[in-house]
Amino acid sequence: MKKIGFLCMMCLLAACGEQRVAIYHNGKADDSTCDAVDFSRDMGKKGKAKIIKKITFDPGQYDFYPDFANEKYMFVSNNDEGLKRIVFLWDELSDVEFDGNGATFIFHGFLNPFVLNRCKNITFRNFNIDWKRTFHSEGKILDVNEEYLDVRFSEEYPYKIIQGMLVFTGFPSKTTDKGPRAIQTTLNREENEIYPVRGMLEFDAGKRETAFQAWDYGISALGTVPALALGDRKVRIFRKGVKATVGNMMVFGACNRNIPAFSLSDCENIRFENIHIYHCGGMGVIGQRCRDIELHHCKITPSPGKDRIVSIPADATHFVNCSGRIVLNECLFENQMDDATNIHGIYVQIIDKRIVSDQDVIDVRLIHNQQFGFDFIKPGMELEFVDGMSMNTYHVNKVKNVQRINKEITRVTLESKLSEDVKIGDAVCDASIAPEIIISNCFIGKNRARGILLNSRGKTIVEGNTFHTPGAAILLEGDARYWFEQAGVRDLQIRNNVFDNCNYGVWGWACIETRPGIDASKRAENRYNKNIVIENNTFKIFDNRILNFYSTDGLIFRNNKIELSTDYLPQNQDKPHFVVEHCDNVDIEGFHENREVKQ
Amino acid sequence: MKKIGFLCMMCLLAACGEQRVAIYHNGKADDSTCDAVDFSRDMGKKGKAKIIKKITFDPGQYDFYPDFANEKYMFVSNNDEGLKRIVFLWDELSDVEFDGNGATFIFHGFLNPFVLNRCKNITFRNFNIDWKRTFHSEGKILDVNEEYLDVRFSEEYPYKIIQGMLVFTGFPSKTTDKGPRAIQTTLNREENEIYPVRGMLEFDAGKRETAFQAWDYGISALGTVPALALGDRKVRIFRKGVKATVGNMMVFGACNRNIPAFSLSDCENIRFENIHIYHCGGMGVIGQRCRDIELHHCKITPSPGKDRIVSIPADATHFVNCSGRIVLNECLFENQMDDATNIHGIYVQIIDKRIVSDQDVIDVRLIHNQQFGFDFIKPGMELEFVDGMSMNTYHVNKVKNVQRINKEITRVTLESKLSEDVKIGDAVCDASIAPEIIISNCFIGKNRARGILLNSRGKTIVEGNTFHTPGAAILLEGDARYWFEQAGVRDLQIRNNVFDNCNYGVWGWACIETRPGIDASKRAENRYNKNIVIENNTFKIFDNRILNFYSTDGLIFRNNKIELSTDYLPQNQDKPHFVVEHCDNVDIEGFHENREVKQ
Repeated sequence: MKKIGFLCMMCLLAACGEQRVAIYHNGKADDSTCDAVDFSRDMGKKGKAKIIKKITFDPGQYDFYPDFANEKYMFVSNNDEGLKRIVFLWDELSDVEFDGNGATFIFHGFLNPFVLNRCKNITFRNFNIDWKRTFHSEGKILDVNEEYLDVRFSEEYPYKIIQGMLVFTGFPSKTTDKGPRAIQTTLNREENEIYPVRGMLEFDAGKRETAFQAWDYGISALGTVPALALGDRKVRIFRKGVKATVGNMMVFGACNRNIPAFSLSDCENIRFENIHIYHCGGMGVIGQRCRDIELHHCKITPSPGKDRIVSIPADATHFVNCSGRIVLNECLFENQMDDATNIHGIYVQIIDKRIVSDQDVIDVRLIHNQQFGFDFIKPGMELEFVDGMSMNTYHVNKVKNVQRINKEITRVTLESKLSEDVKIGDAVCDASIAPEIIISNCFIGKNRARGILLNSRGKTIVEGNTFHTPGAAILLEGDARYWFEQAGVRDLQIRNNVFDNCNYGVWGWACIETRPGIDASKRAENRYNKNIVIENNTFKIFDNRILNFYSTDGLIFRNNKIELSTDYLPQNQDKPHFVVEHCDNVDIEGFHENREVKQ
Repeated sequence: MKKIGFLCMMCLLAACGEQRVAIYHNGKADDSTCDAVDFSRDMGKKGKAKIIKKITFDPGQYDFYPDFANEKYMFVSNNDEGLKRIVFLWDELSDVEFDGNGATFIFHGFLNPFVLNRCKNITFRNFNIDWKRTFHSEGKILDVNEEYLDVRFSEEYPYKIIQGMLVFTGFPSKTTDKGPRAIQTTLNREENEIYPVRGMLEFDAGKRETAFQAWDYGISALGTVPALALGDRKVRIFRKGVKATVGNMMVFGACNRNIPAFSLSDCENIRFENIHIYHCGGMGVIGQRCRDIELHHCKITPSPGKDRIVSIPADATHFVNCSGRIVLNECLFENQMDDATNIHGIYVQIIDKRIVSDQDVIDVRLIHNQQFGFDFIKPGMELEFVDGMSMNTYHVNKVKNVQRINKEITRVTLESKLSEDVKIGDAVCDASIAPEIIISNCFIGKNRARGILLNSRGKTIVEGNTFHTPGAAILLEGDARYWFEQAGVRDLQIRNNVFDNCNYGVWGWACIETRPGIDASKRAENRYNKNIVIENNTFKIFDNRILNFYSTDGLIFRNNKIELSTDYLPQNQDKPHFVVEHCDNVDIEGFHENREVKQ
């Protein structure tokens, strides 16, 4: 087993609250397999938390293995819950500076890099996060027809065919130990690990982005697909009706999001500078119930020097029920398998209401399984009651008592009399969620799905970014029936951005669009998004669609430049630039000929 | 959603520490679907624990659903760990009598009936435990050949074919609700539940026991098997080389053991009287680190009035690192998918040793994944060090400090100097484990595998039982390389039992046998089991094999009656009654002609 201590030398220099970590090995990347977990495991314990204020690393590669890591059952919103191994598990640390000095952290297997709970004033800077074995797999497309698809997997993506099904695995163990089974079990852990996959998506090998108009091809709930080994790492995938181009890459997307790079819960003032996340097994940075999170000069991008086309298997960043300020500045978010960011609250569904000892009680349930365990309702909190179909807020009440039944259901006693309109199936959210957002000077694109999902009532500024997203660059979403994401902007400025050939994929109807989950029959009744100004941007479009809005009050579009492009094959030449439905106070400068208004 | 409260009437009469539970419904079993979880959920909370001393039920059927149940992450030895929904979750309750008055508790889905932690003086009596949907599935064998097997599943075993793979599911929801997806999700939970399977085993439909000489046929790690729907609930299973008899039942065994009926941890004096466990999703009664557990007049048997051939999918009972007395008296253990009982300790494996600040430190690891989280090493405990190959104890030491690294690894600082013989790969166990065992007047058989696995150093009496097991009726096992079960009897009396046509299956070499995992090359060096007296029993045998012993000191076989039977086809007529290898102090009365001694 690979363990720190004897083969590798690691220095921990602790003085005056500073801890310097250095690791020396023989320099060859392939041999730097000592386990750096031992020194990190206790770093976040409460006693030490008061002492260590600065952690610095000597440059180099540090390898982390799950065997001796911390462990904790975690609910991480929009990722998957579970009992997780964790390298840096920090509870209630504050005022810590963590400087990697350019070090690269290589993680092996199912291991969470950073988990912070109730931490304050933490800065991470100057390091790279990568994985030995990715949670997704990539195969070069060799042949494709109505019945099957042939791909070749490089050595980077180990797999087996088990009972005619394709199963991705960890790397075969290098050990030749012939000891008793038990010791072999320990050593061969990686080889026996299974990396289930959820779907297939084609990437353009030349452009290194999701292929033009490529769809997700679902794979069964079993995390695998029927397949036949053809030899020489060539595999025939029996999935009917796949359309793809020989020479492109077929990406087998990870089934689960167990391993975000940074999981932040109930933290305050967390800053990331110059952090490069080349891979992880979930989102890059997920903040839940946090205040003030900033990323500056960070990159989510495929591992350099490798042939990977995908960076991370989920959203680059994601913020749920956060407050204060969220800043994404001068960052690169590319080639991840979901959006660059999504900033929203959470709706729970009312599943029961009754009166107990003269007090109104409701049972609410988290419906989306990646929101289970997201306990946000606290005594004293003001709750909004939202109609499930129209998404209109029709009642407000205050929380008196909260009883957590289990990860799905919470029983809430209310301060005041419930409105008689409150009905089973409607949604409830924290009325106070309104972080201020600044997204500036970032490049966002080449990923699966959309760019940024903006759903905060706080002042939101999107400035100086370049978007090259296959779906909508900017989406205002939210719904109380499917994803249960609380949304609705109140003050959104989109200015000085370049929308560079967006919508070359299938995830959206325009560069900037609203798509709150208001039932079509109810859209006239609601103005879910408000006060949007879009100005001084450049829209370089091969496709006519620029805006697609409904149920909005206040939409100004002015001083924007529209450039026509021939970089992709247009799909919607008959469509107008602007589709506006059930909106008030709309002022779209110029382009009246290209405006479609249904009221 | 089914919920208690309005449709069903439930009375809770609490007075003088007594709680009476009555539930009234319209009497039809199919409609008794109100959820009885609400009243049970808070019963085990600490405040109530001091008040409630007697819980009685009116006769009838009580249905329990997971939606509103308690939740806890649990490690249950020899079952599967996980975040579990639990009906009766009792922490530190004492002196409680729980009388079902013949009530039947029907559980729905993934829901643990009883979980007791650190409870004392508890009696359960007079109720039945059953499940709406079993965790295994049974299909009637219609055809079989080298390539495939055709079976028909009754309505009791819902399934789907997904991408050519057989997937067992929960029952389709009866709701016709057309509301938003979220509400449907809630209602259709069962339908979307997957019941993964691990293997196939044939049962004799006439004899209602595992089929003669039937083997386990493994199914892949995916929990499913390639299959084709033939219509009319007939399915073709593509598993080569299966041998089976048309008309018999093929049982698709549950993959996991997530849901024992009773999970007892660190409890004392727990008594079961007249409890019938017709089904559950793990072991019937599992006790870990408990003291004094007794079962009287309990039954593990297939649900009456249904066509099920299997009772529960794992061992009827199982006791790990227990102390005091374990009594199984006048019980029926039949048709379960594993042994009737297994009473043993646990070995951990030494994976590292070193000296830290002049003190000897070892890292030990739980290897068997169903033992993960079994934390038993405490300061002050005397540890035995056991050679992994010979299973000889060669060193004893005392625990000074314990640091739990994670569910697998524990770091132990020792009081005294470690022997130089201590080496990586050897095993460590609690030296004090030695419960007294009485197993009397039980019927044990028709199940998969063996009867009782006796591995305690305490006085062990097996008296007045009837065994009709497909494997060994009594097995003395233990090993430090595969299952990591600490064993080795010191005083075992086997008397007045009937061994009725045992060994009709493949799991054993004789009616009574030792099979400690001592490497064949080391068996001469160890006397792992000691002082065994087998007297006044009747061995009704169709097969010659009665005893198979090695590495034993003290084996007396006297006054036993041997009757020849023609009930099954003999497989081992050339074998002797007695095989004895590397044993001392052996006294086998009569039958010298049938004794094989290798020394």
